[in-house]
Amino acid sequence: MTDAVIADHSGRPIRVGLDVGGTKIDAVAVSSDDRIVARLRRATGWGEDAVVDSIVGAVLGLADELGVTTSDIASVGVGIPGLVDSDSGRVLHAVNLGVESLDLAVRASARIGVPFRVENDVKAAALGAAVLRGVEGSMAYLNLGTGVAAGIVVDGRIWRGSRGTAGEVGHLSVDPSGRLCGCGQHGCIETFCGGGALAKAWGRPGALPVRDILDAADAGDADALALRADLFHGAAAGVRVLVLSADVERVIIGGGLTALGDRLENGVRGALRAGAEASAFMRSLRLDERIELLPAGSPAAAFGAALVGASVPSKEIVSHG
Amino acid sequence: MTDAVIADHSGRPIRVGLDVGGTKIDAVAVSSDDRIVARLRRATGWGEDAVVDSIVGAVLGLADELGVTTSDIASVGVGIPGLVDSDSGRVLHAVNLGVESLDLAVRASARIGVPFRVENDVKAAALGAAVLRGVEGSMAYLNLGTGVAAGIVVDGRIWRGSRGTAGEVGHLSVDPSGRLCGCGQHGCIETFCGGGALAKAWGRPGALPVRDILDAADAGDADALALRADLFHGAAAGVRVLVLSADVERVIIGGGLTALGDRLENGVRGALRAGAEASAFMRSLRLDERIELLPAGSPAAAFGAALVGASVPSKEIVSHG
Repeated sequence: MTDAVIADHSGRPIRVGLDVGGTKIDAVAVSSDDRIVARLRRATGWGEDAVVDSIVGAVLGLADELGVTTSDIASVGVGIPGLVDSDSGRVLHAVNLGVESLDLAVRASARIGVPFRVENDVKAAALGAAVLRGVEGSMAYLNLGTGVAAGIVVDGRIWRGSRGTAGEVGHLSVDPSGRLCGCGQHGCIETFCGGGALAKAWGRPGALPVRDILDAADAGDADALALRADLFHGAAAGVRVLVLSADVERVIIGGGLTALGDRLENGVRGALRAGAEASAFMRSLRLDERIELLPAGSPAAAFGAALVGASVPSKEIVSHG
Repeated sequence: MTDAVIADHSGRPIRVGLDVGGTKIDAVAVSSDDRIVARLRRATGWGEDAVVDSIVGAVLGLADELGVTTSDIASVGVGIPGLVDSDSGRVLHAVNLGVESLDLAVRASARIGVPFRVENDVKAAALGAAVLRGVEGSMAYLNLGTGVAAGIVVDGRIWRGSRGTAGEVGHLSVDPSGRLCGCGQHGCIETFCGGGALAKAWGRPGALPVRDILDAADAGDADALALRADLFHGAAAGVRVLVLSADVERVIIGGGLTALGDRLENGVRGALRAGAEASAFMRSLRLDERIELLPAGSPAAAFGAALVGASVPSKEIVSHG
């Protein structure tokens, strides 16, 4: 991304943000007064070329919907799983997308002449959630989806840490005799509250296995009761880690499992209260009052990507002024 | 602390730092070129008045040793356990010192006419360790003493978080069937690697119980072998939490248990390696290469307190800057 590109596009009214998931892309167009003026969903392609195609297609689809051309788009931000070099816009090891190494910002930008910025999807969602929920100070976004990870935002900026592992709380073990995690360890937080791990432990057919678990638990099924307790316990453990290490003021829970709504929120809150019952120290933290759940279908991730897209890379700030 | 006080003392050559522990105060005098030019230890008094007396006594003792008067002292920084309001210099709930509520900065300053700043001891030690070890970027200081807590320093500044619980990793549970912690939870990191918890679990007489545990483990004692494994496992868990949440670049281990030297460092490193054996993700973090142990008797905590003492409170920067 060069100075010229930034300068050329600063007057354009529309910022686009894309949240690229394993199966679909959530795309939003954001106006200059920070309103979401269009939104669409597209299937995500598999493999490097198809991922670029589907991203470009989503941007063009939004332009169509708004009746504008790409010359009205100031920037595109992309939140995408995997290891992201946000300075170069390169994506590595996004295994759910069939991407091993993809020069995403350069390739997509070349296709439609708009500057692209790329960010890890959870970090972008964290920024979007912080802005949408009006959080000042510090917050963590705990993403409960197929996997579990968090993003931290402090004073309106994504907390990057030293090597990009900030917020990777999903792979902290909280029980040495817990289930084997995909990462090779036992009892990781993700094995308790990740949708993928819960579906595997449940092992019964169904399109929405975590919802099936909650329904079966309500009906008294013993396996389901245990897994439901794991879900709430694991999410509570994630909240505790984020507060007792980075000391964020609030934890906003997002991700696919927010489709469970109040059942999830009340369960996590209950687990936080139960965990604090025996401990005056934990009670003093009032963790149950410091969490909130994003509404199901919240555009936080795509909105955050739009904010990332419109930001000036840190390298540019250093080198130009 | 007023503008006038800060302005009055800025030309004085000596900054004093005190690390106030449950039994003794470690006091250093730091010259204007950041060298430690004097150091002494004093017993800590019990209760509010005695704590103030022993702190003032340590400052006067250093002045004596250097052949200077208090008019040569620009500032005193105090690192002290408990809940510290660093803006007002008030200390709450320092139970090991018999202090319930102490207006420490105001009372000590009134006695000798030198400005005092007060900071939580682990946070002050973290800053001292970062500067003494030349760490740029981000680091955590993991204090293994009677209890376990960490401080985080980013770009030369103490990371405070939102409510003062940043780095309180000692009270994260990593094993639901672990020992009962003093905080009321089970399996807290502190129950594995806190000197107090290990001594209690060991339950045999001796002045240096954790050293006794390591010696007995070397001799094949089964209880000691289990507790030694707990020590290394718990410290490794603390390192993992700090890296996978705040993503600090380095973790420096300090505190009383550093008297164990290489036996502790090699043990923690071994536990980090063993924990990563089954996990490519954990191996990729190279945690075993990112830890270091402070030398036993390191002045990091008192030196950090001296740096805190010489810093301008954030409120002053805001209101006069």
